[in-house]
Amino acid sequence: MRLSRYFLPVLKENPAEAQIVSHRLMLRAGMIKQQAAGIYSWLPMGFKVLKNIERIVHEEQIRAGHIPLLMPTLQPADLWRESGRYDDYGQEMLRIKDRHERDMLYGPTNEEMITDIFRSHVSSYKDLPLTLYHIQWKFRDEVRPRFGVMRGREFLMKDGYNFDVDKPSALHAYNRHMVSYLRTYERMGLTAIPMRADSGPIGGDDTHEFLVLASTGESEVFYDDRVTALKLGDRAIDYDDRDQVAAVCKEFTTLYARTDETHDESVFAGVPEENRKVGRGIEVGQIFYFGTKYSEPMGATVQTAEGTQVPVEMGSHGIGVSRLLGAIIEASHDDKGIIWPEGVTPFHCGIVNLKQGDAEADAACDKIYAALTAVGLEPLYDDTNERAGGKFATMDLIGLPWRITVGPRGLKNGVVELTSRRTGESEELSPEAAVAKVVEIYAAHR
Amino acid sequence: MRLSRYFLPVLKENPAEAQIVSHRLMLRAGMIKQQAAGIYSWLPMGFKVLKNIERIVHEEQIRAGHIPLLMPTLQPADLWRESGRYDDYGQEMLRIKDRHERDMLYGPTNEEMITDIFRSHVSSYKDLPLTLYHIQWKFRDEVRPRFGVMRGREFLMKDGYNFDVDKPSALHAYNRHMVSYLRTYERMGLTAIPMRADSGPIGGDDTHEFLVLASTGESEVFYDDRVTALKLGDRAIDYDDRDQVAAVCKEFTTLYARTDETHDESVFAGVPEENRKVGRGIEVGQIFYFGTKYSEPMGATVQTAEGTQVPVEMGSHGIGVSRLLGAIIEASHDDKGIIWPEGVTPFHCGIVNLKQGDAEADAACDKIYAALTAVGLEPLYDDTNERAGGKFATMDLIGLPWRITVGPRGLKNGVVELTSRRTGESEELSPEAAVAKVVEIYAAHR
Repeated sequence: MRLSRYFLPVLKENPAEAQIVSHRLMLRAGMIKQQAAGIYSWLPMGFKVLKNIERIVHEEQIRAGHIPLLMPTLQPADLWRESGRYDDYGQEMLRIKDRHERDMLYGPTNEEMITDIFRSHVSSYKDLPLTLYHIQWKFRDEVRPRFGVMRGREFLMKDGYNFDVDKPSALHAYNRHMVSYLRTYERMGLTAIPMRADSGPIGGDDTHEFLVLASTGESEVFYDDRVTALKLGDRAIDYDDRDQVAAVCKEFTTLYARTDETHDESVFAGVPEENRKVGRGIEVGQIFYFGTKYSEPMGATVQTAEGTQVPVEMGSHGIGVSRLLGAIIEASHDDKGIIWPEGVTPFHCGIVNLKQGDAEADAACDKIYAALTAVGLEPLYDDTNERAGGKFATMDLIGLPWRITVGPRGLKNGVVELTSRRTGESEELSPEAAVAKVVEIYAAHR
Repeated sequence: MRLSRYFLPVLKENPAEAQIVSHRLMLRAGMIKQQAAGIYSWLPMGFKVLKNIERIVHEEQIRAGHIPLLMPTLQPADLWRESGRYDDYGQEMLRIKDRHERDMLYGPTNEEMITDIFRSHVSSYKDLPLTLYHIQWKFRDEVRPRFGVMRGREFLMKDGYNFDVDKPSALHAYNRHMVSYLRTYERMGLTAIPMRADSGPIGGDDTHEFLVLASTGESEVFYDDRVTALKLGDRAIDYDDRDQVAAVCKEFTTLYARTDETHDESVFAGVPEENRKVGRGIEVGQIFYFGTKYSEPMGATVQTAEGTQVPVEMGSHGIGVSRLLGAIIEASHDDKGIIWPEGVTPFHCGIVNLKQGDAEADAACDKIYAALTAVGLEPLYDDTNERAGGKFATMDLIGLPWRITVGPRGLKNGVVELTSRRTGESEELSPEAAVAKVVEIYAAHR
């Protein structure tokens, strides 16, 4: 994309309404615009990151054998009356009457609807295991929406639901979700720690939250800091292998890591003192096993191999897709702006032309642009007449991980500059070598 | 995808509530489930087609130089009070009060919000031309939702908005949209005819609707049937070339083609009698030029090169993304089921194993599956124990354009059967040749 043809309304001033760094940087980098309290438009660059995050979530869910579908944003109230949650859910549920005065609601979550889909179409253990998920906009009418997309009212969430014939199978589904989530977050450059949590209004026995450590997090967290060194890395996972998947979960949940809701001081005391840490965390996902909490009242039963009818065993599993943008920025920025991890960056590489209109510099930029585009990478080429300092400030603010700087002086020596946003380090390379290096870096993120 | 691990709840019976063939077939093929009047869940196979259509729309909009973003589903009523449409819009607008009793609405379209985004960030002709679009769920509270996704209440639409400094530039944007829409529909296997139309509640001077001919269409259409032979084909379009783009529009809009709203019997009489056709059509898109209708009341002005302030020239342009599924099926089916065009098919090729459990047949199917997957195609492999007749009926119903049938008898002679869903014709080929032919067919649709 050429910046002269793009819509990237960066702000020079710090917006007064933003209390936390991710909100401030998303506004300043022209990623979002507030349309009402807690309701945002995603401007082009924000939308690109949102789609990248959504794509990674889809890819890892599909890899785990889960099947995407899409439920609507509006739901009939009657479904929620069946589970009993229509009255239980408080003012956070946005209740709507349509023109025929029918009670509707803007879905805050989808346990009831997915159970309805299941009971309409599945009746035998032979069709199990089954995990269905979607990525759809939700609404929770928070009293005081704040922190930008971190605590918005209209937000994008991935929510998935497993259906299994018995508890061991449902617990395997739970574990499968935990592992697929670990990989999802790692691909986004995040360390998200699974912590034993409280089940809240979803209900259930087993639940873990995934927390990204950040001083602005809403939850107090207590953990053994060796947990932050655990990585899934490139290891091959067979999601059908119950033992392997359970072993990974054990590896990631054995060290102490809990939120204030489940914190137990006496157990925490057993962590070696030098590893005992108290901090804050941003919740970016949660998994639940809740058995027959919804299947029983809603009559979602299956026939077992023995011929008996049992309510299906379920769990639900969520990732806060839009909130992840905020979490990633909270975890990855400096005083100049955002530092995107390669996995989610809106553009792979910036190209800064130090002297727009100089025939040689223009030609070199065009060639680098074409070479990156030809291999499927997306550069953002600042082809405007802005002075160099302004171009660098914008590139630093919007946080593309790599930048190629092209100027007449360097070109005389046959070089351009390749700069890492994260380290600030630059090296002089031929244009071809700079392109080759960027291509190589991203080959590891496909 | 292996059918044994998928969720494809096909129905044997014709559902009573479906009055038109696309609705019936989408229900029978397990693509959608109604959750409330005019509100649907997109089951996995329906969701796949929806995503394919969305992807084509995105690709062609980006090719035309238009920039994607995403506006929220809910909007504050105040924006609509500025344009005067809050009171004008009738009961089709779903009005909502949040917990603080603020007036909100579920967006039926986005002229006001995009104008708000524009005026907040753009003030100079130097930032023009600019076309922003999004693909987002909309809600129109129809009195009698019917015909499945063809006239739903919650529906997915692409709506784009151009901002230009003067009328000639805005009319070029109009033309650019027309051409990009023609290519979009062609890629979906549709003949969609641009017809001069009425502007309705959006307002404006110039507007064309795109109509797909189908006996179930809601509009009566009058046309010179030579218009149906026009094809854009592979011709290269330079979307910045005003003359070229205008010439394409002229080519596609010169022959008589109008809806009942704008039909003029006296002009129609001039069409040669053998070409004069009256039929019905399904509207799948509409483009509008409306000048300063929104920019003026909402104060969206830009400075011109001469230094004066003028309200920006605008137009809006929509494609009914979810409705297109219905339109495609109305235009492409037979008495056995759907016939997907290659451009949008949920799976590229079916694989039917005539004798599941036969070691040789299973191995041959696995090999074909792996070969198609390796080149990025997605087969649907019916690996169930259903009898052959049932497998064929399902494949015909769900309408994958190509099917490879594998059985022990054929394998003895080293052949499998490759069948076209559209023509019903089969040929015997080696498994390798069958795979190669499918790969070749889809190479033309990348």
